[in-house]
Amino acid sequence: MTSPAGGHGRASGATAPGGSPPPSFQDMWRDLAPIGRHAGSGGYRRYAWTGADTECREWFREQAEARGLDYETDRNGNQWAWLGDPLAGDAVVTGSHLDSVPDGGAFDGPLGVVSSFAALDELRRRGAEFTRPLAVTNFGDEEGARFGLACVGSRLAAGQLTAEKARLLRDGDGVPLARAMEAAGHDPGAIGPDHERLARVGAFVELHVEQGRALDLSGDPVGVASAIWPHGRWRFDFRGEANHAGTTRLADRRDPMLTYAETVLAARREAALAGGLATFGKVAVEPNGVNAIPSLVRGWLDARAADQATLDAVVDGVERAAREHAERAGTDLDVVRESFTPVVEFQHALRDEIRRVLGKHGPDGSGRTVPVLGTGAGHDAGILSASVPTAMLFVRNPTGISHSPAEHAAEDDCVAGVIALADVLEGLACS
Amino acid sequence: MTSPAGGHGRASGATAPGGSPPPSFQDMWRDLAPIGRHAGSGGYRRYAWTGADTECREWFREQAEARGLDYETDRNGNQWAWLGDPLAGDAVVTGSHLDSVPDGGAFDGPLGVVSSFAALDELRRRGAEFTRPLAVTNFGDEEGARFGLACVGSRLAAGQLTAEKARLLRDGDGVPLARAMEAAGHDPGAIGPDHERLARVGAFVELHVEQGRALDLSGDPVGVASAIWPHGRWRFDFRGEANHAGTTRLADRRDPMLTYAETVLAARREAALAGGLATFGKVAVEPNGVNAIPSLVRGWLDARAADQATLDAVVDGVERAAREHAERAGTDLDVVRESFTPVVEFQHALRDEIRRVLGKHGPDGSGRTVPVLGTGAGHDAGILSASVPTAMLFVRNPTGISHSPAEHAAEDDCVAGVIALADVLEGLACS
Repeated sequence: MTSPAGGHGRASGATAPGGSPPPSFQDMWRDLAPIGRHAGSGGYRRYAWTGADTECREWFREQAEARGLDYETDRNGNQWAWLGDPLAGDAVVTGSHLDSVPDGGAFDGPLGVVSSFAALDELRRRGAEFTRPLAVTNFGDEEGARFGLACVGSRLAAGQLTAEKARLLRDGDGVPLARAMEAAGHDPGAIGPDHERLARVGAFVELHVEQGRALDLSGDPVGVASAIWPHGRWRFDFRGEANHAGTTRLADRRDPMLTYAETVLAARREAALAGGLATFGKVAVEPNGVNAIPSLVRGWLDARAADQATLDAVVDGVERAAREHAERAGTDLDVVRESFTPVVEFQHALRDEIRRVLGKHGPDGSGRTVPVLGTGAGHDAGILSASVPTAMLFVRNPTGISHSPAEHAAEDDCVAGVIALADVLEGLACS
Repeated sequence: MTSPAGGHGRASGATAPGGSPPPSFQDMWRDLAPIGRHAGSGGYRRYAWTGADTECREWFREQAEARGLDYETDRNGNQWAWLGDPLAGDAVVTGSHLDSVPDGGAFDGPLGVVSSFAALDELRRRGAEFTRPLAVTNFGDEEGARFGLACVGSRLAAGQLTAEKARLLRDGDGVPLARAMEAAGHDPGAIGPDHERLARVGAFVELHVEQGRALDLSGDPVGVASAIWPHGRWRFDFRGEANHAGTTRLADRRDPMLTYAETVLAARREAALAGGLATFGKVAVEPNGVNAIPSLVRGWLDARAADQATLDAVVDGVERAAREHAERAGTDLDVVRESFTPVVEFQHALRDEIRRVLGKHGPDGSGRTVPVLGTGAGHDAGILSASVPTAMLFVRNPTGISHSPAEHAAEDDCVAGVIALADVLEGLACS
């Protein structure tokens, strides 16, 4: 990891009331950097309720205490650090997550949490007067890397996942979530909807490294989210006839690998045509022998688009092409939609307010309007948006690479993100 | 399995000298049918040195004894049933194998062994006078389903596989071949080249169900092999860049699945163009996640053709297309030849003699010339051809399906095969 921290004065924090100076932006990254990092891949393996996760949580608690914030863990294991009365209501909350995908990058999640603490420090440095309670959060198990379901902490809180279902989730070794929670010191009997707590949140803002190149292409360090794209996964089962690869004439074959290959290319064409995204990243073959024409090729289509009509056009186009090629090759095709999430539009009023605040001098001081962009990735903010006015800020990712050790954001852009978040929080929570 | 046996008089055998009538063609199939058959798939799982293999070997021994033939197992576990003096030299040998691929069909292998015994019965029925020793054989571990190497019994005998290497072969559970042999009652210390034995063989003829549709298309029940095609396997490693399928713009991707798909289709085109065979039947993907653009797609090309120049044209064409597409997609490509077997030409003199014998009245009584055809599949006959004058007869397969429970040959064609084999053996071994 290249630390995004620097000696930038504006982001380096201010003394908490009555205490020593809080850890600087640089200090926070330095302390987080070794936790759960795999020496071989250079990527992070911070999975929910593991030792690395516990270390990240301990780090969060230390950050809260170093700033004199009131620390608490909620019933679902999400962490909160409060400035002001948590029970007063209409709180402004900011944060993200600290867990990772397998061999993930340093920024996806932690950039939002580190920037939240740094933005609070910046506001104190400015001498801001808070008129609403403010909290920094770390939502648990956002990536779903261990138990296969993303955003478990926020889903439970928002009532989008029942406690019964959550407790039965199992990791790759068959360990149920309930047992993993217990082993990490959290009571699995306590989990469930937390409507009262969410009702006290007036606005949630999540800062996140961009997982694409929209800001790089527009030349902006920071952007505001419009929506999380509708997205889903479809399983394509291509069935043919197993046969000997060394003796079966081409004309006598019903080879589902050919239909799969045509469909992979059709997905790319349809996505380009409609302006969406379509990917075949996972495939399973039977019998998967070098000298055997397959009987079954199973491929999974991940498709996403800015709106439902575009997504429908992509998926319908891929399925139509697949059926045409299957017909021609004498193979059979079944298509099953395995999951689907409709579009999540972030609250327009909050977004417009954020644009107004940031537009005052622009996140890079240029005075330019901050760009608004959609994203194909899910986030806790997407889950919470059903219960709470929610917004997201994105920080430029020069390569767009994400979920990889190569994920990166430049130091200046990270600092611009902190300043933008501080501006937004000041606009929302200060007089 | 549909039994290919019937009450056809000519093939139903004759009484061995001084004994009761030998098992009929129908009886032989009936006794073999249940051995190693999987109730779920309906296919055969007769793997080397397993219980099913031992049962098949016991069946072979019973067939030898029922005909008053001298039974022996050679040092490599191949079975022999002799009519006449094994040491006299210039013997005519016929047979095939009894083991199977996973969920294989009833005919691949057993048709050759059953037909060999039935042809001997037919010759006795005709009152043939034998001027050369005759033997029926069952070569061990032809399919290589358990230890990953085909034709182990014939390779050992011909000195094409050393005893040291053979003993170290391991099955999927890590059991070495030596231990498996021992458990089945065969001394692994005895295995090795058997040149003296092979030197006493004047001709080897293997009858086999065709693993393609050449005879179905030409309308002939029986054909003669010209050659085993040159064939090999090539591993194509397509490397790209792992990234988030939901957020990475199409233009920013280096997706090796697209290059793989283009190459699969190129293989089909090149094979059709050159008149060879090319198949991608096995693929491995990393990380193989639904929402991840792969970093690596590894595909194996199985390619075969009637001659080396055609095979080269196919493989060169596929590799050239793959490199062009990799260049365009920004992916990297490594191609590794994992195995290769040059063309095996069966002895022309023996083949011409067989055609002359069968041409007398034709295998179907039509007087038509028996067709000569190449095959893309390996056989014990291919291994032995380096040491012994060798030939193969093929029996029509109406669907061409092989290595599958759906493998089939019609009863009349199986009987025509027995008669053709009897004619060939009579021409070679009788006055």
